[in-house]
Amino acid sequence: MHFAHDDLPLLDTLQDFMKSHVFPAEKVLEEQLETIPLWTTAPIVQELKAAARERGLWNLFRDLPNLEYARVAEVSGWSPHLAPEAMNCAAPDTGNMEVISQFGTEAQKEQWLKPLLEGEIRSAFCMTEPEVASSDASNITTSIRREGDEYVIDGRKWFASGAMNPNCKIFIVMGKSDPDADRHRQQSMILVPRDTPGIDVKRSMHVFGFNDGHHGGHAEIIFSGVRVPASNMIANEGDGFAIAQARLGPGRIHHCMRLIGMAERALSLMCQRAQSRIAFGKPVAQQGVVMDWIAESRVRIEQARLLVLKTAWLMDTVGNKGAHTEIQAIKIAVPLMAEWVLDKAIQVHGGGGVSQEFPLSSLWAAARTLRLADGPDEVHKMSLARRELKQYQS
Amino acid sequence: MHFAHDDLPLLDTLQDFMKSHVFPAEKVLEEQLETIPLWTTAPIVQELKAAARERGLWNLFRDLPNLEYARVAEVSGWSPHLAPEAMNCAAPDTGNMEVISQFGTEAQKEQWLKPLLEGEIRSAFCMTEPEVASSDASNITTSIRREGDEYVIDGRKWFASGAMNPNCKIFIVMGKSDPDADRHRQQSMILVPRDTPGIDVKRSMHVFGFNDGHHGGHAEIIFSGVRVPASNMIANEGDGFAIAQARLGPGRIHHCMRLIGMAERALSLMCQRAQSRIAFGKPVAQQGVVMDWIAESRVRIEQARLLVLKTAWLMDTVGNKGAHTEIQAIKIAVPLMAEWVLDKAIQVHGGGGVSQEFPLSSLWAAARTLRLADGPDEVHKMSLARRELKQYQS
Amino acid sequence: MHFAHDDLPLLDTLQDFMKSHVFPAEKVLEEQLETIPLWTTAPIVQELKAAARERGLWNLFRDLPNLEYARVAEVSGWSPHLAPEAMNCAAPDTGNMEVISQFGTEAQKEQWLKPLLEGEIRSAFCMTEPEVASSDASNITTSIRREGDEYVIDGRKWFASGAMNPNCKIFIVMGKSDPDADRHRQQSMILVPRDTPGIDVKRSMHVFGFNDGHHGGHAEIIFSGVRVPASNMIANEGDGFAIAQARLGPGRIHHCMRLIGMAERALSLMCQRAQSRIAFGKPVAQQGVVMDWIAESRVRIEQARLLVLKTAWLMDTVGNKGAHTEIQAIKIAVPLMAEWVLDKAIQVHGGGGVSQEFPLSSLWAAARTLRLADGPDEVHKMSLARRELKQYQS
Amino acid sequence: MHFAHDDLPLLDTLQDFMKSHVFPAEKVLEEQLETIPLWTTAPIVQELKAAARERGLWNLFRDLPNLEYARVAEVSGWSPHLAPEAMNCAAPDTGNMEVISQFGTEAQKEQWLKPLLEGEIRSAFCMTEPEVASSDASNITTSIRREGDEYVIDGRKWFASGAMNPNCKIFIVMGKSDPDADRHRQQSMILVPRDTPGIDVKRSMHVFGFNDGHHGGHAEIIFSGVRVPASNMIANEGDGFAIAQARLGPGRIHHCMRLIGMAERALSLMCQRAQSRIAFGKPVAQQGVVMDWIAESRVRIEQARLLVLKTAWLMDTVGNKGAHTEIQAIKIAVPLMAEWVLDKAIQVHGGGGVSQEFPLSSLWAAARTLRLADGPDEVHKMSLARRELKQYQS
Repeated sequence: MHFAHDDLPLLDTLQDFMKSHVFPAEKVLEEQLETIPLWTTAPIVQELKAAARERGLWNLFRDLPNLEYARVAEVSGWSPHLAPEAMNCAAPDTGNMEVISQFGTEAQKEQWLKPLLEGEIRSAFCMTEPEVASSDASNITTSIRREGDEYVIDGRKWFASGAMNPNCKIFIVMGKSDPDADRHRQQSMILVPRDTPGIDVKRSMHVFGFNDGHHGGHAEIIFSGVRVPASNMIANEGDGFAIAQARLGPGRIHHCMRLIGMAERALSLMCQRAQSRIAFGKPVAQQGVVMDWIAESRVRIEQARLLVLKTAWLMDTVGNKGAHTEIQAIKIAVPLMAEWVLDKAIQVHGGGGVSQEFPLSSLWAAARTLRLADGPDEVHKMSLARRELKQYQS
Repeated sequence: MHFAHDDLPLLDTLQDFMKSHVFPAEKVLEEQLETIPLWTTAPIVQELKAAARERGLWNLFRDLPNLEYARVAEVSGWSPHLAPEAMNCAAPDTGNMEVISQFGTEAQKEQWLKPLLEGEIRSAFCMTEPEVASSDASNITTSIRREGDEYVIDGRKWFASGAMNPNCKIFIVMGKSDPDADRHRQQSMILVPRDTPGIDVKRSMHVFGFNDGHHGGHAEIIFSGVRVPASNMIANEGDGFAIAQARLGPGRIHHCMRLIGMAERALSLMCQRAQSRIAFGKPVAQQGVVMDWIAESRVRIEQARLLVLKTAWLMDTVGNKGAHTEIQAIKIAVPLMAEWVLDKAIQVHGGGGVSQEFPLSSLWAAARTLRLADGPDEVHKMSLARRELKQYQS
Repeated sequence: MHFAHDDLPLLDTLQDFMKSHVFPAEKVLEEQLETIPLWTTAPIVQELKAAARERGLWNLFRDLPNLEYARVAEVSGWSPHLAPEAMNCAAPDTGNMEVISQFGTEAQKEQWLKPLLEGEIRSAFCMTEPEVASSDASNITTSIRREGDEYVIDGRKWFASGAMNPNCKIFIVMGKSDPDADRHRQQSMILVPRDTPGIDVKRSMHVFGFNDGHHGGHAEIIFSGVRVPASNMIANEGDGFAIAQARLGPGRIHHCMRLIGMAERALSLMCQRAQSRIAFGKPVAQQGVVMDWIAESRVRIEQARLLVLKTAWLMDTVGNKGAHTEIQAIKIAVPLMAEWVLDKAIQVHGGGGVSQEFPLSSLWAAARTLRLADGPDEVHKMSLARRELKQYQS
Repeated sequence: MHFAHDDLPLLDTLQDFMKSHVFPAEKVLEEQLETIPLWTTAPIVQELKAAARERGLWNLFRDLPNLEYARVAEVSGWSPHLAPEAMNCAAPDTGNMEVISQFGTEAQKEQWLKPLLEGEIRSAFCMTEPEVASSDASNITTSIRREGDEYVIDGRKWFASGAMNPNCKIFIVMGKSDPDADRHRQQSMILVPRDTPGIDVKRSMHVFGFNDGHHGGHAEIIFSGVRVPASNMIANEGDGFAIAQARLGPGRIHHCMRLIGMAERALSLMCQRAQSRIAFGKPVAQQGVVMDWIAESRVRIEQARLLVLKTAWLMDTVGNKGAHTEIQAIKIAVPLMAEWVLDKAIQVHGGGGVSQEFPLSSLWAAARTLRLADGPDEVHKMSLARRELKQYQS
């Protein structure tokens, strides 16, 4: 065991890119979003994508081992609305690309993976349903029914992130193809192009008031008798649950990697603000409670980061399944840690902290949401506890 | 000491009104807000105001003792975006009406208090400034300078709640009239009509992602050489700090009363949701952790409510000053309690919980903000601790 | 509803008594305990009992309404190892006296209640068993078997508080008289004199490192074929569960009343210490984190006290059953609150805080234990949540 | 960076030793302590020392790099009252040996280091004083005054751990040799043999009721005109503060390493107990709240362990000074984590958990005490925050 990082020149490139391009682009994005049609991609994003690609900061989620990607993703997490997309490393595209890459046919890859890897189109993942507790996949009610050479899809999904953006051209839909099969063989995943008849992208779900327009929102979509060729099935009927499991592990760690960066940014802003504001005759940074928050933040971030890095290393060495416990552990620990640090940074910023003046409230909403996205923490804790208890069963 | 409530028939009237008018109006408000110009008052609000007034649910903050008003305000807190305004009991108007009523001249009352009491216009309170830690009033930089028969106001304010609404006709502005006076005699408060030249209502501050459009937002306002007659001064030059103190006490308890209702609504929604959702073969309500949250919520709400009621009773019996410690105590305890309960209710609602599908995320943002509005909790804790320590000084 | 306390002259008497007699006796008790045989009563306790009785501070748990007794018990909680016993108001005697008084025969009262009320003997309550989770009364394994005119008792109990003291003359034992009856009709309670053959008072359980010798410890007792006359049965066979329920409600609130006093003492010590110690150039009381603890302590104590008082009032007005929810609520809230305040007071005292130099560590151990005595908090929360949920069941 | 541990055959040896010797010895120790004179070493400890030494498990704190010793110390932390002493790796001897080894003269080493390394005698460290906040070293009042060829020591110390044991032959005393020197040059450390005239080992301080007799307690010692040869000075006059700093870093990490093991043992006991106890018809392990605790415990332990290991690695690679921030971070994080896990384990054990029936309450007291030993957490947080803030100073 040793804790020194290997050289990773890309990281320096990225850090330079953050300073020169990404951070200055944040205000630009905000301004552009007020002038362009809702849900469309801001020009600055296209510019950043070109600039990132030029620097080799492109599709790194595929090319780097997890342990190296963790460091990259952390840095991109300082500006999570811009940097990941600029590098073509944003959710849900990364997960979707992984799915097609790993389970798709050559034709599926040609049609969808290629433009996704080029950053020409975007994609959505349609899993959660408004009517049921979707953390239990066996609850899913959307049906995927074979009829001749086609599948017919009926159901209602929401929180299809990114799907409001008209450039989001392809949906991966999870549904039930065989309600009578074994619990974990009932589900399938299927590719559904956005322009298929019967699709109604109804509205976007907000997240603590944010519409997340920069990112294509979180769509509620109604599928009514939507027909796609049978060849759109991903892998085989009944593989849906397994594909979801394979997809969610890396997705969760990517979120956690970025959350470390988000927490670091919050701590950085908290320190700066605390030193620049005077109250009751001294800088806020000299208030004991604020110092306590700063120290606690540092201690919590360090612990969380190490657990994320170890998890990434495990995924590289023993595979995603071998890292199952650790992936659950970071899913439980990291969003909560980031939320805590962000809350304190907000408090130090006073009214400004809850407003659009600083990125804190938006980062907070993202961190809070990750306590329940991909399954609420409580479900993961139950599962983790069961494995822990198993060791003591006679 | 006894804990039975006196009869309060108005409370039954209000509860009926909530069920018959207010709760159904929530969806209507949401729909109307999408069709009317941003920041303007939705027609449903006018309807509710008429209906409330008809039932005698009008200006109760003035007419009832605090202990009775606490019970009324709690019930209105179940729907804080609609019920308080319907009853002409919404912040910041209530505080502003109190100020004019208590400290204003007859002319000021005639011009501004009267239409406010009639619910014909609204008002804003301009205290917080973007450039300084405003929890320390001596930091305030906006200047109020006497020139002949006029005062000239220069400065920048933000979080002037309600001021985006064009029907918000009058601003009470806190500024420094004499930077060389004693620390608590430097400030004055002055009435500034919205249409005075030199006022630039620049933008609205969001709270998390919410623009609070239903309520007139939270404006940033630039005052550049704004001239008002000297007769607009409230009380005397130098009275600003004292008026602020007088104004904030009742304001804080009103917020706390409503927060109890917000927490009750969250608990109610949590219980209903937990019973209607099935995950892993049983209702979510049978999950031990969820039951723990429900019990904790009940226990925390009860304690907070009692402290609010005792504080109200103290204000009625020994006055606002005599209740100073208790007002600080509820300011510290109640928003945090409500935030906690709301957080758990959100978690039980999954994705829906963070979205516009339920009122929870919006209520949460309100509760969170109250941990720093009217001075961050930490400032109140320091002050409360100092009083506690004083008893032991030799 | 109003929050002014009625006159209660006894309270002044008690407060004088605390200052003049009880607090000075604490050091004396400690010294005497080192010289007298382990488990015997210290002479100072007898002196205090005489002095208390003389002042009318005797058996008040029986004579006062709960709302008044709450105030008395709070003050006695400042010195919980001495004051309650001095006033003949100490657990478990109070609960045992209530049981005999309420359910006992005249003969039982004559033999046991009378000397208990006189403070001549003490008593123990034998319920918890080492082998089973005793929070579920149906788990109890001790058997009470009728044989002719006698009952035969076999089983193992522990945490029989006070039973190590040779002056503890009578045990109330809970056991199963009919394992085939309905779940809540299987248990009985029976009077077992200490000197009955077959009783082995085996050892005392420590609480953290404390043996609680001042109080008769917490005995583990083995009952092997212990025979008592059938007339020792309390009420009827099968009434044990109901008697336990009746007994535990008041017992829990008495603990909570005293915990308020324990927390107040901790806060008082914390404030004094923080002002007398200098570190890094200023009194510890000026450290922001310490001030935060002091303010939080005050806010938490006030809320808990109000809930205890309301519960007492409910017991007085609608009876113990009507106050069931509130009794559970204080059982959940108050020990945790007191533990928190004590923990912070300890931290402010440094090494001294964990030691015998201050009463804090001993008070802490008592508060911590009450999170699981009379059923762990988690059991009470489940029950409280179930009642809360019931309101929403269709 | 990689997370695989190197081979460490000693670790297997230690684990075998724990199972075959240490765990079985725990009950033996308890029994022996009741029969031997208070404060003397139990025979079982001598046996374990011989057995450990035979297996090469001796003085490993000196021989192993920190990263390897961390793993050893964690395992020994499962039985912290026995294993560390058995291996001659117990505090405060380890720190004292380091001090003499690093700063002592050859004569000092011959006289004191040699028998300490052989485990023939024990030692104490006399730093904390009852009268002052000792976390601020400049507060120390014990005087070390040069008179001719001697130093004269006057002062009062407490929490001199181990010093009650008559075999504790040598005290390292921190005092002020020059009150007029620079703040950090006023202190000296000096060797004071136990049998020097003028020493009064007055009493032992308890820790939550525990006298820690197995370990020689925590003595209060009065030094009245105690004279030692000038050659007993460690290094030079004025070096005391620097030596203390050098001593405390490794001491803190050793505590933290063992705390990881203590937390693991608590989790292990919690899992076993939860599975063996039935309440309300199912094993306690199936209660949602208990599962939540188990999962949280695992997640918290893993994070803390990684931070301890990284800190150890840093000390090995960049030295103790380079690891200063991380040492503070673990001092803040690890005792609190262990305390939390132990608290939950206690709760799952019910009454047994707070008693001598399980090691939990004793481990808890140790963990709690480490939140204030070697300086309360709050002092470390202030210092850590200051370093964090420094990065943002202009």
